[in-house]
Amino acid sequence: MSNYTIGIDYGTLSGRAVLVDVSSGEELAAGVFAYPHGVMDTAMPGGAALGRDWALQHPQDYLDVLTHTVPDVLARSGVNPADVVGIGTDFTACTVLPAKADGTPLCFLPEYRDNPHAWVKLWKHHAAQGYADRLNEIAAARGEVWLADYGGKISSEWSIPKLWQVLDEAPEVYAAADRWIEAADWIVWQLCGTETRNSCAAGYKAMYHKTRGYPSRDFFRALDPRLGDVTDGKLGPPVIALGRRAGGLTAAMAQRLRLRAGTAVSVGNVDAHVCVPAVGIDRPGRMLAIMGTSTCHMMVGERDVQVPGICGVVADGILPGFYGYEAGQSCVGDHFGWFLDNCLPEAYGAEARRQGVGLHKYLREKAKARGPGASGLLALDWWNGNRSVLADADLSGVLLGATLATRPEDIYRALIEATAYGTRVIVDNYRAHGVPVEAFYASGGISQKDELAMQIYADVLNMPIHIAGTGQGPALGSAIFAAMAAGAASGGYDDLGAASRAMAKVKNERYVPVAAHAAVYDRLYAEYATLHDYFGRGGNDVMKRLKGLAESVG
Amino acid sequence: MSNYTIGIDYGTLSGRAVLVDVSSGEELAAGVFAYPHGVMDTAMPGGAALGRDWALQHPQDYLDVLTHTVPDVLARSGVNPADVVGIGTDFTACTVLPAKADGTPLCFLPEYRDNPHAWVKLWKHHAAQGYADRLNEIAAARGEVWLADYGGKISSEWSIPKLWQVLDEAPEVYAAADRWIEAADWIVWQLCGTETRNSCAAGYKAMYHKTRGYPSRDFFRALDPRLGDVTDGKLGPPVIALGRRAGGLTAAMAQRLRLRAGTAVSVGNVDAHVCVPAVGIDRPGRMLAIMGTSTCHMMVGERDVQVPGICGVVADGILPGFYGYEAGQSCVGDHFGWFLDNCLPEAYGAEARRQGVGLHKYLREKAKARGPGASGLLALDWWNGNRSVLADADLSGVLLGATLATRPEDIYRALIEATAYGTRVIVDNYRAHGVPVEAFYASGGISQKDELAMQIYADVLNMPIHIAGTGQGPALGSAIFAAMAAGAASGGYDDLGAASRAMAKVKNERYVPVAAHAAVYDRLYAEYATLHDYFGRGGNDVMKRLKGLAESVG
Repeated sequence: MSNYTIGIDYGTLSGRAVLVDVSSGEELAAGVFAYPHGVMDTAMPGGAALGRDWALQHPQDYLDVLTHTVPDVLARSGVNPADVVGIGTDFTACTVLPAKADGTPLCFLPEYRDNPHAWVKLWKHHAAQGYADRLNEIAAARGEVWLADYGGKISSEWSIPKLWQVLDEAPEVYAAADRWIEAADWIVWQLCGTETRNSCAAGYKAMYHKTRGYPSRDFFRALDPRLGDVTDGKLGPPVIALGRRAGGLTAAMAQRLRLRAGTAVSVGNVDAHVCVPAVGIDRPGRMLAIMGTSTCHMMVGERDVQVPGICGVVADGILPGFYGYEAGQSCVGDHFGWFLDNCLPEAYGAEARRQGVGLHKYLREKAKARGPGASGLLALDWWNGNRSVLADADLSGVLLGATLATRPEDIYRALIEATAYGTRVIVDNYRAHGVPVEAFYASGGISQKDELAMQIYADVLNMPIHIAGTGQGPALGSAIFAAMAAGAASGGYDDLGAASRAMAKVKNERYVPVAAHAAVYDRLYAEYATLHDYFGRGGNDVMKRLKGLAESVG
Repeated sequence: MSNYTIGIDYGTLSGRAVLVDVSSGEELAAGVFAYPHGVMDTAMPGGAALGRDWALQHPQDYLDVLTHTVPDVLARSGVNPADVVGIGTDFTACTVLPAKADGTPLCFLPEYRDNPHAWVKLWKHHAAQGYADRLNEIAAARGEVWLADYGGKISSEWSIPKLWQVLDEAPEVYAAADRWIEAADWIVWQLCGTETRNSCAAGYKAMYHKTRGYPSRDFFRALDPRLGDVTDGKLGPPVIALGRRAGGLTAAMAQRLRLRAGTAVSVGNVDAHVCVPAVGIDRPGRMLAIMGTSTCHMMVGERDVQVPGICGVVADGILPGFYGYEAGQSCVGDHFGWFLDNCLPEAYGAEARRQGVGLHKYLREKAKARGPGASGLLALDWWNGNRSVLADADLSGVLLGATLATRPEDIYRALIEATAYGTRVIVDNYRAHGVPVEAFYASGGISQKDELAMQIYADVLNMPIHIAGTGQGPALGSAIFAAMAAGAASGGYDDLGAASRAMAKVKNERYVPVAAHAAVYDRLYAEYATLHDYFGRGGNDVMKRLKGLAESVG
């Protein structure tokens, strides 16, 4: 008799569930449900307009994912609900909402429904930038010890800037919110009836530290006196390490999902971080790049090293028992998509249609025909600013080396190469600060579909690249953590290494660097690094001045 | 009774004749004849393949222009040939051929027909680059005084590198060539039976100086001992100033062209330089930009100033009695065309067709909607290297400031702006070296068609821009010089000022700078200048290294 777990991955536009065999990692069935309200960035459900840079979601959509996908994967797999030993979830982050003490979202209450601050603020809600800027100033001025854990800068996407925005712009919502909770933790609360806070989101998005806890009351008071007691209740009960059991499925929820009441529910997790065990990483020095519209770089270490320019280092942040390191690039797949939308000539589209292939595939074939260095182009991949290691949203993209002989495929390839150089900067930055990077794994859409990009990454990094064996990395990761929550006694695992060795999936084929290409890329990377520092570290702040000028005339 | 002249402009792909009223400049008829052999850059007429970077032409094509267009404009205008008092010509340069002492091109002789070196080397024949490089090295090492007249560097397109290539690669052709002659002078020889050399081509393309003559015998010997006697005959008779009469039309040619024998023929001229009187410029400080695929910047001065980075300063080189200054940008219209061919998305093409407008016009309308500085983009216009003031073909293009919000029209506008900044560098360089630039005129295709570009130029230069009143600037200029050749006694003019005041044409409407735009462009130009010097003057030679790498792997 086999045991199974269900992993549920909450993305930006939809949620997906995968039912997995805990002995083999085999995915027996998968189901997707698109959020009926999607991303609300222009208007609330009632029709009221939203400001610039807002992005909200509807909590009911998250519940609907459960009721649509879980019974569906059970039915399609034919698995007996009694053999499902655990359920695990992961979520975008920081995606966060105000709730009452019983878990009811404020936006479900008629008196708050029309207030945009009562809704879920999605990770890409950017209207709290001013609050993040002030928070960073104050933290730096006070010499807050935790600031260096986050590469020296807190993002406007994170929890406290978003909460401060609520307090400042809608104090009545702030006052009514007993809880300010990550959607990742809220959905777990809905499943098992027990409120928990997971170590990943708390650490990476709310500056929680395993021994020091949240930033001090004094710090919060320095931001705003009304924030002084925020850690007394709104941020919830103590933080629990990843892999732990949050509780058992409630009877009501079990009935709606066609599962057994009491089925183990794992603590919440974040969609990028949860991918790490899904490729079998269970020790330091192995970096996973999750490559999609943007890229997250995940690694664990045994020591707590403050590395400049990374997104964060958090105890139990990725794998329990290790320090988790996260870095990121803000524009990867988005970059290639921008090129297709804005720069691809008509003749290429026509020829791709004639050949019956997609535009990316068509361009890849043409770009492959020219080897490293042949186009004379070099780009800085800052079309959406730079996340790591410069953490500067005001940087912008550069293409250098264009001639009348430059063809679209040359530019396309240069953009791919630029993102690979950006990854190498992150790897080199870790190494320079004593955090070794010894192996490289990739998951996410680009890793599955784009063999040109992956070979370029192998050549630029001069490291073999292991590829995730599933396109459902986050859901598989959640299923692994679900097996941990169940524990060996209930048919799961007590040890994450054992769970991931059994359930993780990596393809047999690796991308192996070609020595001659790696040698050329060493030279190109040296040029990239020079321009990176010239434009990114104050040699010439032309990008900031251009952006300032555009804002002043725009 | 009116008098008329005929101006004939020999371009890269065709020749065009215009019949003009000398009292008013009115163009009564125009005719074009496309060269049957066009540009021969892959094979000779006999079919033999040409090497890379070769570009040849067929002298018979030039003669065919005369016999097709001159009788045609006479017939269509209804002008009595007896009232045509002069004929003038201008040519691309340096477009040059070997000939016998009687003017017969070597390629017309059966024994040389199969030798590519016997044909006309078109201006854009670039296979003599190695000879130009060695010439520049030797001239610099010897401290040749004339080198600074040409901004410190001789182009591979010019006469002596091309001649040296003939000597080195086909010594039998060199030995058989009694003359090495600009096509501009060769066509005049065919018209009037008298061999002349014009001061413009000799000065700008063969390093001839009004008082010093050609470079010394010692210099030529230092290049190659066999070149020691080159100035004794191959470079022809003494040089004659622009505006002078070369001779009278021969009886044989008069019969073929349906003109009077003895009709005044002006000395040869170059297609860009001849445009200056056609916009009425007759004094120092007024710059004419001839804006097409590339741009030439023409100006005259009373003093002989050696200005770094210009193409040349030549006595009688543009207008008789003045020093002529030429500078250039190698990629202007080509730049915008490259963008349309390589970067314009399908949706834009479809929408332009739906609206029934051309792509350039469609993009211009979209680009106009965003004012100066609004896109945050800045480009360096070096897609085809830099002619003035850096004189460096190994520089390449840069686009900086790209974001995911960047649209094709933003890039298009940035490329136009970049060429305007490039023009401002040239203007500022003259001013910095004591050559005033007080007024700005534009002719050529872009000046006639592209009101967006012209307004941007006015704003960037912060000067009003006068626009040529005809699209046939070179042919009108040749017609003006034809009237000078005829002289007042024969119904023409003795004074170029009088001729150009009567015959030149400038539109009534000028492009006037908008103060607010000029202020923004001052800031953007400062950024351009910083990047220009960083990448162009040794701050970071990344472009040269990328080009070297591309050549080594390509």
